[in-house]
Amino acid sequence: MSNFSYLPLLRFRESIFRQDIISSLKNFIHISCRFSQGKKCDYRSRRENYFKKKNRERLSVYLYNMASPQIEEAKLAPLRSAVKEYGDLIRTLKESGAPKADINLAVLELKARKKKLEESELALVPRDVTFFDRLKFEDLLKQRFFFDQSFAIYGGVTGLYDFGPMGCAMKTNMINLWRRHFVLEENMLEVDCSILTPEAVLKASGHVERFLDWMVKDLTTGECFRADHLIKNFAEKVCQDKKTSADLKEELMDVIAKLEGFNDADMHDVIRKYKIKSPVTGNELSEPIAFNLMFPTVIGPTGDFKAFLRPETAQGIFVNFKRLLEFNQGKLPFAAAQIGSGFRNEISPRQGLLRLREFTMCEIEHFVDPSDKSHPKFENIKNYEVLLLSSCSQMDGMPAQIVFIGDAVAKKMIANETLAYYMARVHKYLVRVGVDPKRLRFRQHLSNEMAHYACDCWDAEILTSYGWIECVGVADRACYDLLQHSKATGEKLLAEKVLDKPKIVQVVEVVPNKAAIGKVYKTEAKQIFATLEQLTVDKVEVLEQELNSIGKTKLHCSDKEVILDRGHVAVKRYEKKVHTEEFYPSVIEPSFGIGRIMYSVLEHSFRQREGDEQRLYFALQPIVAPIKCSILPISANSRFKLIMAAVRSELAKYSVSYKQDDSSGSLGRRYARTDAIGIPFAITIDFESEVEPWTVTLRYSVTMDQVRLKVSDVGKIVADLSSEVMSWNEVQQVYPKFEQKCAA
Amino acid sequence: MSNFSYLPLLRFRESIFRQDIISSLKNFIHISCRFSQGKKCDYRSRRENYFKKKNRERLSVYLYNMASPQIEEAKLAPLRSAVKEYGDLIRTLKESGAPKADINLAVLELKARKKKLEESELALVPRDVTFFDRLKFEDLLKQRFFFDQSFAIYGGVTGLYDFGPMGCAMKTNMINLWRRHFVLEENMLEVDCSILTPEAVLKASGHVERFLDWMVKDLTTGECFRADHLIKNFAEKVCQDKKTSADLKEELMDVIAKLEGFNDADMHDVIRKYKIKSPVTGNELSEPIAFNLMFPTVIGPTGDFKAFLRPETAQGIFVNFKRLLEFNQGKLPFAAAQIGSGFRNEISPRQGLLRLREFTMCEIEHFVDPSDKSHPKFENIKNYEVLLLSSCSQMDGMPAQIVFIGDAVAKKMIANETLAYYMARVHKYLVRVGVDPKRLRFRQHLSNEMAHYACDCWDAEILTSYGWIECVGVADRACYDLLQHSKATGEKLLAEKVLDKPKIVQVVEVVPNKAAIGKVYKTEAKQIFATLEQLTVDKVEVLEQELNSIGKTKLHCSDKEVILDRGHVAVKRYEKKVHTEEFYPSVIEPSFGIGRIMYSVLEHSFRQREGDEQRLYFALQPIVAPIKCSILPISANSRFKLIMAAVRSELAKYSVSYKQDDSSGSLGRRYARTDAIGIPFAITIDFESEVEPWTVTLRYSVTMDQVRLKVSDVGKIVADLSSEVMSWNEVQQVYPKFEQKCAA
Repeated sequence: MSNFSYLPLLRFRESIFRQDIISSLKNFIHISCRFSQGKKCDYRSRRENYFKKKNRERLSVYLYNMASPQIEEAKLAPLRSAVKEYGDLIRTLKESGAPKADINLAVLELKARKKKLEESELALVPRDVTFFDRLKFEDLLKQRFFFDQSFAIYGGVTGLYDFGPMGCAMKTNMINLWRRHFVLEENMLEVDCSILTPEAVLKASGHVERFLDWMVKDLTTGECFRADHLIKNFAEKVCQDKKTSADLKEELMDVIAKLEGFNDADMHDVIRKYKIKSPVTGNELSEPIAFNLMFPTVIGPTGDFKAFLRPETAQGIFVNFKRLLEFNQGKLPFAAAQIGSGFRNEISPRQGLLRLREFTMCEIEHFVDPSDKSHPKFENIKNYEVLLLSSCSQMDGMPAQIVFIGDAVAKKMIANETLAYYMARVHKYLVRVGVDPKRLRFRQHLSNEMAHYACDCWDAEILTSYGWIECVGVADRACYDLLQHSKATGEKLLAEKVLDKPKIVQVVEVVPNKAAIGKVYKTEAKQIFATLEQLTVDKVEVLEQELNSIGKTKLHCSDKEVILDRGHVAVKRYEKKVHTEEFYPSVIEPSFGIGRIMYSVLEHSFRQREGDEQRLYFALQPIVAPIKCSILPISANSRFKLIMAAVRSELAKYSVSYKQDDSSGSLGRRYARTDAIGIPFAITIDFESEVEPWTVTLRYSVTMDQVRLKVSDVGKIVADLSSEVMSWNEVQQVYPKFEQKCAA
Repeated sequence: MSNFSYLPLLRFRESIFRQDIISSLKNFIHISCRFSQGKKCDYRSRRENYFKKKNRERLSVYLYNMASPQIEEAKLAPLRSAVKEYGDLIRTLKESGAPKADINLAVLELKARKKKLEESELALVPRDVTFFDRLKFEDLLKQRFFFDQSFAIYGGVTGLYDFGPMGCAMKTNMINLWRRHFVLEENMLEVDCSILTPEAVLKASGHVERFLDWMVKDLTTGECFRADHLIKNFAEKVCQDKKTSADLKEELMDVIAKLEGFNDADMHDVIRKYKIKSPVTGNELSEPIAFNLMFPTVIGPTGDFKAFLRPETAQGIFVNFKRLLEFNQGKLPFAAAQIGSGFRNEISPRQGLLRLREFTMCEIEHFVDPSDKSHPKFENIKNYEVLLLSSCSQMDGMPAQIVFIGDAVAKKMIANETLAYYMARVHKYLVRVGVDPKRLRFRQHLSNEMAHYACDCWDAEILTSYGWIECVGVADRACYDLLQHSKATGEKLLAEKVLDKPKIVQVVEVVPNKAAIGKVYKTEAKQIFATLEQLTVDKVEVLEQELNSIGKTKLHCSDKEVILDRGHVAVKRYEKKVHTEEFYPSVIEPSFGIGRIMYSVLEHSFRQREGDEQRLYFALQPIVAPIKCSILPISANSRFKLIMAAVRSELAKYSVSYKQDDSSGSLGRRYARTDAIGIPFAITIDFESEVEPWTVTLRYSVTMDQVRLKVSDVGKIVADLSSEVMSWNEVQQVYPKFEQKCAA
């Protein structure tokens, strides 16, 4: 259900890093425009700069150093104190019990100020370091079919993407590693539940009521627009107009900054005030209308069994809680996990893999006793370092800090050990798949960003050319979901624990006179006994009152009402010593968007060979690379065929994927081709290979270093490199370096 | 699209193996009835029998020997010739060009006779061998949460199942093996496409028009019934009634036998003739109404972008054909694969995992030149043996035959090498995951069962307690799908090949007078040139005729019509030498239903320890087992903790999944518990373990044999056993046998 909290955040962030945004601040990331003209030299040299390792490192250092407030203190200090002013105001308002509306208004202003601060921070990074050629990047992904728009030959559908062979393999590898890193290493219970979900389930979870966006309709054509997008586009356009007055500009910039926090009435006010019309037809627009973001469907032929495609996988775990607890022999804590598709009927999706209508999620629900959220393996990650942007820092206008996880819990920045344990594990996973740790931070939700039931929530955010994108949410959801499903179904989704020492409790219960009831109600008696047994204390007390006052009581039993009098039932009160206690478990939920992580990894690993702008490639971690190695004979010499067959058979023995390229191109060209699809290792068969025992060279795409090794070793070595059992450095220490004589 | 062909077949088969079927023949499989009373002894001993290995083998031998016509010749011969009579009739009708309706009628009768024959064949197997206790089986699966109905706490939804930790892990292992066996070993291009599919795509594929079932509605309440189920249930009930006359019984048995081939009119006739009413209310029923089996939804907020949940994954591959061909550098043949969810809005699903509304499919589309369907690796599988039930055998009333794949192609039983190659690979995969090869056959579709565009189609059918269930369809679909999507989109989904020798072709083309057209149509001219270039030969000839007769012609150009005269265009005819040729590739499609295969594997591996009816377990292949091993200390002695930690760390090194059970139960009881969830190997730490170097015992659940080995070996050995690198026999040869002293 992290969805709820994702939405406003995303909308917020969407507005930040676009070239067309009106702001006196320089943009952080400069994206090459498809139809840009002139200044080719400048463009080229900027792109070249981006690809230089030295510059990549400068970027990282810059970003990382922002965590230390010494940097550019002078420029940022006024912005920081502007934020802090409102942070303090909000604290005061809360303490003095001010009305919620006032607090919300202050939060709106706080966020606008935070945004300006963040833009300024990023703007301090020198331009030449951060230039990212998204056009070239996207072209390469498309051309090598990592992914592309679905149903393109039918005109395509926005928000739907198909993964080609490279994207699909990379995604599978990321998921397999996720399974190893979480399900296997943490002994989780993985489940696989239905996508089709009955309406009743999503009513209980709150999605039917609250999983919404606001849209406006063209009153003549019926065309729909997302209200916040419409306002933002309008405001940006007006601000760009040179004829617009400085005052109006100021006003509209303020609208843009606060838009994220607007409700439907606020947006309607803006639309009316500025007389915003349909950007397509110029027609009048409707008021903002709530649009539920779930895809509706019906199950079965009658048309009255309403259902939705699940907006998240989490609910499948909650409705199976009882079975899972039983599977775990009734013991807490335990974690369940699910990997699968989620769906969200966006009004007008943009930004490729970052905003999809159909996406792959990995979710964990860790069930724990709310009175003890310690974690048995916390010791292992205490000294793990992460970059944290706490809610306090956000209120104070302070930058993110590099913190040991253990210290963050000790200082109560992170609410509890289990939450912190997962944050460390999430961080480690992201780095393993190839996210640059310097461009990765955890940002805590402000109290008004969190779902109302959550205790604490941190988003793992990754810096990309679209800005800081949240890719994983880690939330303590308390017992909200289990409670909701319990209420909706009458099933008690409780766990039980043995008390340290037995407890005396007051019991109030109805004792039926079974013979008397049986005589009157015959076959219904059994149902009546069951109903009486399930009465809550409140209801028993009502019953007792009625018996005492009017001598009889009504009981709802299945669909009927039965009358019981003092001869049928009596109310008994007594003390009982209990050794166990039932409770609703709390849930800690890490929720991953695989598409977003994959996109970020691809951005972070996009490279160009120095001095050759044609040779673009992906420096992927071997463990996620779609194909692990290529087989390249140095020439089409038929004598190589036997050696190639031996190499293939060695690779097959260890289930290593490979791509053979024995086409006639030069070796350098074939290297470039395999680099472009992120293949980390190339096995080359050359004229030396024929000397017995047969050998080949093995090249690592990132460093272009090569070693020579026996054919009989190559399968195991590439398998070990690809599963993180061995590193390239270790391989270089074992095998002799090979100096290439021919191609680059 | 094998769905089209699956449907009638399934309905057909559904009717065969049910206990309540009215037939003078004994049923093959006897399922224990949930509320059966009395005869407990008989029931028990029958169940015991089923679990005896000797009896399992007897069953297999029986089934296998049916492939030889010597068995029970006397009993089956009359039935065989009854089938053959109609097989011959159909052949004659076809040769003489008889009307299609006559042929269809004959096919209906042929199928009814075939069904009787098959029932008789199976009935020859002795009853005690085939008794299967589905109740106990399902209880165990439910209790250990392999899978269970979705949303049970909300009352459940028929046709939707959730996989628990055991089922999910087993499914993942089956899918991973599938990926290794097909995608990796055959170098396929795996893709991952959208589930949401626009209506236009499924119109082109034929699903909107033809993916239907017939239902009838209660005219008063609106309740829906599947028409064929309704008729069958009615007929069965009447036949069971002792008062029913022999004639009526005969009539109704004939209806049941032919039901599968009935169209809506036939079913309506039956409903009217026998005055069938709603079984629930007794109300009148509607005529059969077509019900499309796809789940409908809408994309985006306007409500007019209709879409469906995909009924199969195949279409995602077809619409990406151009990208995939390009990825494969334009070369044929190549195969694409996809693993994912498919959806089918069944009217009233039954039979658990065999008939789901949401299911996992694995599909392969192998694209090949239609004039050359040879397969480069055919040599490898030529001598692979499979059990084939060809369409000829079915027409002749003959049993399935054990055949070498190579011979089947040579004798033209199987249409081509590629189809045959996949059949062998499919067979091998099914056996690897644990299907009993003796209960596995390929049945060829009769010509009227196949989709109209298919050339040849074989179903891999597995014998379960529900009868022969098709789990994989292997079809040669010709170029149907690519052609359909080409027509719908105007994109040419063609491949190109270099001709052996150049060919002279006649070219007819329109040559525009660019200057003249440009002068008149200005900016539209470019579009006109493009349109002219794309005209088909037919259209050019029409244009030529018009120019010759009336001196001008109309051209549809985008949304407009333009008039061209002799001054604008001329038609040119000439000969051209071409070196390449474009063509629509043929598609060979193996399509797997993972849920069905999983169900069959679980049935085939369900076991009971001899003499102990409480000890039920699954003898799963290690490669698909949900958890690979258990760790069981012989006692709660705290000195074992270090050894257990060492074992866990060895297992982690090789990513081997395990379940530790250090509860206080006896070792025998803990073995039983791990056996019940299909864990193949148990690592026991006993008092001997403490002698340095530390050792443990390793037990194989199926044979209960044990060996003793060093802790430092245990990770690698279990990993090798679980990935088919080593067999249990090989392990037994390397390590000393351990004779257990305490528990069973």
